[in-house]
Amino acid sequence: MKTITEFIASGGITSPRGFSAGAVSAGIKNSGSPRLDLAILFSEVACNTAAVFTRNRVQAAPIIVTRQRLREGKATAVIVNSGCANACTGEAGVKHATDMTEIAARHTGLSPEAVLVASTGVIGDCLPMNRIRDAVSGISLSVDGGHDFAMAIMTTDTVPKEAAVTVSGAGFSIGGTAKGSGMIHPDMATLLCFLTTDAAVDTAFLNKVLKQAVDVSFNMVSVDGDTSTNDMSLIMANGQGGGEMITEESINAAAFREALQQLCIRLAREIARDGEGATKLIEVTVKGARDLGDARQVARTIVCSPLVKTAVHGNDPNWGRVITAAGYSGVELDAGKLELEIGGVRLVKNGFPVSFKHADVVRKLEASEISIVLDLNLGNAEAVAWGCDMSEEYVTINSEYTT
Amino acid sequence: MKTITEFIASGGITSPRGFSAGAVSAGIKNSGSPRLDLAILFSEVACNTAAVFTRNRVQAAPIIVTRQRLREGKATAVIVNSGCANACTGEAGVKHATDMTEIAARHTGLSPEAVLVASTGVIGDCLPMNRIRDAVSGISLSVDGGHDFAMAIMTTDTVPKEAAVTVSGAGFSIGGTAKGSGMIHPDMATLLCFLTTDAAVDTAFLNKVLKQAVDVSFNMVSVDGDTSTNDMSLIMANGQGGGEMITEESINAAAFREALQQLCIRLAREIARDGEGATKLIEVTVKGARDLGDARQVARTIVCSPLVKTAVHGNDPNWGRVITAAGYSGVELDAGKLELEIGGVRLVKNGFPVSFKHADVVRKLEASEISIVLDLNLGNAEAVAWGCDMSEEYVTINSEYTT
Repeated sequence: MKTITEFIASGGITSPRGFSAGAVSAGIKNSGSPRLDLAILFSEVACNTAAVFTRNRVQAAPIIVTRQRLREGKATAVIVNSGCANACTGEAGVKHATDMTEIAARHTGLSPEAVLVASTGVIGDCLPMNRIRDAVSGISLSVDGGHDFAMAIMTTDTVPKEAAVTVSGAGFSIGGTAKGSGMIHPDMATLLCFLTTDAAVDTAFLNKVLKQAVDVSFNMVSVDGDTSTNDMSLIMANGQGGGEMITEESINAAAFREALQQLCIRLAREIARDGEGATKLIEVTVKGARDLGDARQVARTIVCSPLVKTAVHGNDPNWGRVITAAGYSGVELDAGKLELEIGGVRLVKNGFPVSFKHADVVRKLEASEISIVLDLNLGNAEAVAWGCDMSEEYVTINSEYTT
Repeated sequence: MKTITEFIASGGITSPRGFSAGAVSAGIKNSGSPRLDLAILFSEVACNTAAVFTRNRVQAAPIIVTRQRLREGKATAVIVNSGCANACTGEAGVKHATDMTEIAARHTGLSPEAVLVASTGVIGDCLPMNRIRDAVSGISLSVDGGHDFAMAIMTTDTVPKEAAVTVSGAGFSIGGTAKGSGMIHPDMATLLCFLTTDAAVDTAFLNKVLKQAVDVSFNMVSVDGDTSTNDMSLIMANGQGGGEMITEESINAAAFREALQQLCIRLAREIARDGEGATKLIEVTVKGARDLGDARQVARTIVCSPLVKTAVHGNDPNWGRVITAAGYSGVELDAGKLELEIGGVRLVKNGFPVSFKHADVVRKLEASEISIVLDLNLGNAEAVAWGCDMSEEYVTINSEYTT
């Protein structure tokens, strides 16, 4: 049967059947007015669960604990806090992360082994465990609680990122929420992403498709290996949609993979758009690369270049910065073959500038979404990366983060 | 005989004997009031000459021409312009770069083969050859002209960078000038460095020690492989000091190497301090690494981190960002062994925070030079990298570069 993937209006992590969520203000976020900062995601049955973790050599305590808990590939709930990363906190931090799973387990009637934990916020501070212990009783789980959950994981994010898709003809849906805002240099932003599905999915397949989806989405607003101490993307499949178990060989395998990628790309774009101080979304497409690795590398290098980001911010058609970034990406390229379009206007052909109307490109750069397309003309591989412009406000935000 | 390296007050590229220089405003820089933008460095005799070029895959026309000219390791003069990089300009650009050497040759009575060429500025524009041809006659070469030369190679630099050392007991001196300002992300700044010496130096040895000196200086404010289309460091040795030819085996080999490194480090620090929008010099020392490559990699990653740079700008002792940058540097490290000092105050021991007076560190961060020392406690290798803080002004400068 033909399947159709559609986004659900106002969908999120509790859109798939059998999931509920809730959040509370525990006073972990060090802000004037109380903000939601402690949240639980809950499934009515145990879920096959897959995760992708940060590759940073310094791993936060919740990463250590969640990794251990996931050895069997099963989880029923997740407790998350923002405001404190519980990173660089030694043995005490691991105990606190473990305690968080126990606190959530007591509140939800689960065993601590069924609960995962994630944190995001300032590095080096210890979690205020008493406040968390006191506050958790205020968390009321409901199918309407997905939005509060999305709000509670935000740090410098200005808007929550939520989405859900339903796959008609296959009978399942997938929901998700993500946070991550210091994305102007994505390499150090904490990215958290929680995904849910009411499909029944084999754990091995779930791990595989999650990794693939993260590679074409969050890893394209981020730089491989350059991740924060706390990054985590996870997906819980509770099978409450009633369909058959999806494995690599299932008829619905491709539909699931495709729907998950669409969802993750949607969330990744929202993260890029909401980069700290960002005013524009930049989408960089690199075509004509020798292989996918090259295409990804060049696209990410361009989207991460502060000189490209500042040029876009200033509506400056400074295409030389794009070419320069491609040149230093480490990928072998032929300068004489490069073709570049910004906002659909061709600026470079065969490696050097063609005549174009400066004012036309300036106008294109004034839009809220900027497309940069670079054709290397060396092969057939293509990749897309997302980022945002760099504004004075980015510096202001990051100069004042802890003080 | 014991040698002593001393900096010469107000020294520069014309401090060594037999060198002269001069500059003129040719109207290449697109600024309101006329600024020096075309310069010649001249030696009264042919020089053994060594150079290090950008590793960017896209190489500007002057790089192509100078590389060809240097095949014999000899040069007598250099012509340089700022305001236009002559990059991404195809065959026409190579012709223009060649023409520049001919224009300088005619003006100085040399053959074009004896003249090198360098450019820095906006990518993609063609050089205004008529203006250059007209203006060159206004360049008057003198031993006092080093400062004008240093001024003429500046782009967004706010101050010229010049220095010279004399090595007493060895009878030679070395002078130099450098430019490079977009150094908050050094990977895309154009770095030009011109060095002169009145020592007689064997070309093979000159190449070797120049590469070593660049590795511990300019490459530590820059990121290997992440260089602009136009980067070039070169050294000309004219032997006018009268000493014997210095080779690898010479008694003065070590003194020459050491003096050159000191000079290059001085210029590199000045470049870091004058980064676009910079208000502070950051010096990152990484100790206790397994090998030099690891030490260099971690030091550079920290000094390049925009979150470290913005924290320093805001006087924010956000040591978590330093640890995170070390963690994503790609170097294997043991988080539990890290020790960190900022401004001489220890903040982290055995991988987690020690108690410190926040106000003390804030005060240290208010200084104009900030020292960050990270001990990996894994070995004995050490490296130093330099950078600057990141201010709102950096974004402003780079949003408005060409428009």
